[in-house]
Amino acid sequence: MSKGRILSGMRPTGRLHVGHLVGVLDNWIKFQDEYDCYFMIADWHALTTKYDQTEDIKDNIRELVIDWISAGIDPEKSVIFLQSDVKEDAELHLLFSMITSVSRLERVPTYKEQIEELGLGNSVPYGLLGYPVLQAADILLYKGDTVPVGKDQLPHLELTREIGRRFNYLYEEIFPEPEPKLTKVPKLLGTDGRKMSKSYGNAIFLADSKDEVEEKVKQMVTDPQRIRLKDPGDPDVCSVYNFHTIFNESEKTDELAEGCRNAGIGCMNCKGNLRDVLVDELAEIRAKRKELEKNPERIDEILAAGAKKAKKVAQATMKEVRSAMNL
Amino acid sequence: MSKGRILSGMRPTGRLHVGHLVGVLDNWIKFQDEYDCYFMIADWHALTTKYDQTEDIKDNIRELVIDWISAGIDPEKSVIFLQSDVKEDAELHLLFSMITSVSRLERVPTYKEQIEELGLGNSVPYGLLGYPVLQAADILLYKGDTVPVGKDQLPHLELTREIGRRFNYLYEEIFPEPEPKLTKVPKLLGTDGRKMSKSYGNAIFLADSKDEVEEKVKQMVTDPQRIRLKDPGDPDVCSVYNFHTIFNESEKTDELAEGCRNAGIGCMNCKGNLRDVLVDELAEIRAKRKELEKNPERIDEILAAGAKKAKKVAQATMKEVRSAMNL
Ligand code: SF4
Ligand code: SF4
Repeated sequence: MSKGRILSGMRPTGRLHVGHLVGVLDNWIKFQDEYDCYFMIADWHALTTKYDQTEDIKDNIRELVIDWISAGIDPEKSVIFLQSDVKEDAELHLLFSMITSVSRLERVPTYKEQIEELGLGNSVPYGLLGYPVLQAADILLYKGDTVPVGKDQLPHLELTREIGRRFNYLYEEIFPEPEPKLTKVPKLLGTDGRKMSKSYGNAIFLADSKDEVEEKVKQMVTDPQRIRLKDPGDPDVCSVYNFHTIFNESEKTDELAEGCRNAGIGCMNCKGNLRDVLVDELAEIRAKRKELEKNPERIDEILAAGAKKAKKVAQATMKEVRSAMNL
Repeated sequence: MSKGRILSGMRPTGRLHVGHLVGVLDNWIKFQDEYDCYFMIADWHALTTKYDQTEDIKDNIRELVIDWISAGIDPEKSVIFLQSDVKEDAELHLLFSMITSVSRLERVPTYKEQIEELGLGNSVPYGLLGYPVLQAADILLYKGDTVPVGKDQLPHLELTREIGRRFNYLYEEIFPEPEPKLTKVPKLLGTDGRKMSKSYGNAIFLADSKDEVEEKVKQMVTDPQRIRLKDPGDPDVCSVYNFHTIFNESEKTDELAEGCRNAGIGCMNCKGNLRDVLVDELAEIRAKRKELEKNPERIDEILAAGAKKAKKVAQATMKEVRSAMNL
């Protein structure tokens, strides 16, 4: 029995933080042994919302690859590639655009949300409406049969499945019907208790130095009711505790919660413990990053090798697609 | 001063008739000496409305090339190429889709018309909405600066100009602003007086044999009020006369109109004259077609050579485009 094939990707929109590590990368790292993995840097997708901010895209791509590999994505095991290196994706997107209806795309729940969120009003890019068509092309071009998704992305994957089915029905049975792989995403908040996000300034980045991590932990928001050491605290409203639940051993975490509730330990102490755990967690990532930064041509090599492997699969698929459509 | 560059195309949807000859090809033939001409077989465009009828597309492409060359399009002077042979077009289409708004596309006048005409109701393909985006990519990829258009296509070209301007404004000044070249299209009706169309069965095809042309002229609808030879006729309501105005010499045409109005000539006679003129007009086309049909590999060679030339231009443009967008 051959391995399933996973297709997943990220947009190159900036440095990754520990939220990405526990929410996405830790899953990807596990997938590497069970699946044939294709990890895509979705630069074309980045244009659907940031077409007018492309100055940093090249840097962001490099940083993303460095983040991935430092975190444990292994270019020997997985195909790491840049979406726009494989032009066949644009071709399949164009062909899929003929068999997908406008009204179906308008019904994708995240579409209306995004228009509102981005304040687009009457100037929604055609490519934003067609975002799920490009995504279907991304996945089906590589015949991905397994797609790790969060719950909110299920409607996108459903559309990919529909487009594949429709193609198979109209022309020839070429595409698999990719199955969603619902991944557990631990709820990690930012250092201030809000959603972790670069734009809120509350993120701990994979690329942060030891000093930066230490400083950020020091500044973390704790239970605001706990002012003096003798005040008992409530770990459930404390972002330090939130971090402990994810990065610390469960026994130690329980002990800290207990100490907080009965005023047995101070916040400085509790933070000191988290700092050590985090610094330790990120030490290996930091070391790998340093090494990669010393060999910038290594990133080019990885992307070139990935593009070669991805193109080979893409070309084979497009050969079948064109023949099925009589093109 | 370098020549202007013309980009024009046709969809491979079936054999060409004499309406295409006088409405399009005769213009193209003239352009060949004044312009650098790129004539494109728009197979991807054919999918915007006929995605589910692709069985004949390969035959239609070959027939179209044969029709073009038989009519006088010269592959030594002009670049004759297949749209889908140049994948860069799909890439530029994808990039343009990010900088074109849905609402702008919905406002293209022909969009609503087509939905109605094709009875699409609620199932309009995304690619049909984006048809003008693909057209913009077709034209700008080759840096066409001159586009022959009928009046009804002006709104499409206006959108191409807008997309090009927007790209130039957002990134870098790369694209020319293509000028419309309004072409005269003589009003040639079908043999039954309705619009000439394959589906009405009232067309004379470039590929028709001498016998077929003769038979079709014989069956042409004349002035229905003119029953006997001695009845004076009205050439303005007669399709035979309509053909004379386009294919016959003007002196002879005037003489026939005069003879019709004063019952000086009979319809048989008038048709006989048209038959000779048409058979003569199509003789050279027919001869060239015969020759091409004997050398099917010639068509492959022409398309391969055209693709090579078109790709070279397309690749150079995309290099500029990617660099301007930092991709
Ligand atoms: S002791 Fe720890 S868990 Fe409790 S409030 Fe302080 S930092 Fe938060
Ligand atoms: S004489 Fe000629 S123009 Fe007049 S009605 Fe007959 S066919 Fe038509």
